[in-house]
Amino acid sequence: MLAIGDELLSGRTKDKNIGHLADVMTLAGIDLKEVRIVGDEPHMIADTLNTLRRSYDLVFTSGGIGPTHDDITADAVAAAFGLQVIEHPEAVARLEANYASRGMEFTPARRRMSRTPQGASLIDNPVSVAPGFRLDNVFVMAGVPSVFQAMLASVLPTLPVGEPLKSLALACPFGEGDIGDPLRQIAKEHPNVVIGSYPKFDGTRYSTEIVIRSRDDGAITAAAGAVEAMLVETERAKAG
Amino acid sequence: MLAIGDELLSGRTKDKNIGHLADVMTLAGIDLKEVRIVGDEPHMIADTLNTLRRSYDLVFTSGGIGPTHDDITADAVAAAFGLQVIEHPEAVARLEANYASRGMEFTPARRRMSRTPQGASLIDNPVSVAPGFRLDNVFVMAGVPSVFQAMLASVLPTLPVGEPLKSLALACPFGEGDIGDPLRQIAKEHPNVVIGSYPKFDGTRYSTEIVIRSRDDGAITAAAGAVEAMLVETERAKAG
Repeated sequence: MLAIGDELLSGRTKDKNIGHLADVMTLAGIDLKEVRIVGDEPHMIADTLNTLRRSYDLVFTSGGIGPTHDDITADAVAAAFGLQVIEHPEAVARLEANYASRGMEFTPARRRMSRTPQGASLIDNPVSVAPGFRLDNVFVMAGVPSVFQAMLASVLPTLPVGEPLKSLALACPFGEGDIGDPLRQIAKEHPNVVIGSYPKFDGTRYSTEIVIRSRDDGAITAAAGAVEAMLVETERAKAG
Repeated sequence: MLAIGDELLSGRTKDKNIGHLADVMTLAGIDLKEVRIVGDEPHMIADTLNTLRRSYDLVFTSGGIGPTHDDITADAVAAAFGLQVIEHPEAVARLEANYASRGMEFTPARRRMSRTPQGASLIDNPVSVAPGFRLDNVFVMAGVPSVFQAMLASVLPTLPVGEPLKSLALACPFGEGDIGDPLRQIAKEHPNVVIGSYPKFDGTRYSTEIVIRSRDDGAITAAAGAVEAMLVETERAKAG
């Protein structure tokens, strides 16, 4: 994923799209491998997009497709692909109809939202009409979270979904320092699962959430059994 | 910034450190230029860190410095620099004293938290003792937000702070489509400021927050005057 916008790097806006995309990809069985956040710099956006689209099967972008001068994503994506920017006729039609129906003027600024690289197909925006677009393996979507989410829902049925990654979370009342050693041993003995360990700190003491992930139910069950036995053993050692 | 952890990419954990770092850097007058999020893959972490530390003056990392098997950041950072990992004597002493004072066993897992690349200096952790570390221009910090924040506060006084970027936010009751054209003109006429335009959508209609940023107060005032005049003009045009 590539999240675009000076406001994300200045702290003015706290990103909400990365976590949402991560959730949706995990549910769909698609591994999110990397996220980058860059500012509103055309060359930086284009170079980063070229790196990502050549490295990964799918790339999703957020931000920079509105009607103002700082919305430069369509131009940067076109530059990355070496394509011209056009006013996409279907996008113009949708926007024109929408503003006409609301009795609003179709200003040149609003018309900017119909601009896409030549050959792009549109991504529906059921929230506020102005579409995103897809070019090859790149999905260009809005930065406003409600619109980003709606666009992602629009494209999700078209994606090559994988076998969903299943996960099982186990609450562990001990800190990582108590379980790190036996957990490392369990991870070694169960190579078909990925075991994550997430410390929680309530201000006084640490506890841990242990998450076992795999595409194989049996492997999760086996690893969970080993973790549960380890927790019983740790409890006994602490009590004794 | 480099945020590290499978849990950020799976959606299980929603990052809170990027926004915090962005806020603190902006206050300190340091421009945050890029953020990357990668999973718990040693080569990916090392390669990404090498790219970032050669591209930017400062790099901050979050995550992967706890006591469990999936905490591999110290090893990955050492690999990036071509250094050995050692048990940092001062870190061992701090951890040992801490666990002794709490009557807790200093397990091998807990001892892992003293591991740093050779030559690293420690970053204080007033929250939960286990330190982060600095190596050259790279600051390696925890992923737990309260600890990340405390470590960042520890290192902030040592950073070469810049002239803080000032910003002025103007609420605009119109959507970007209404103001995009005149705002583009204002941005062109005021090259010493950066004008951001952030759409808000309340479910029914759009409004906009216009933010003018500069290190020069006079330039902000001049641009703000032009934006305010434009808003009055827009209001009049809509009423008329």
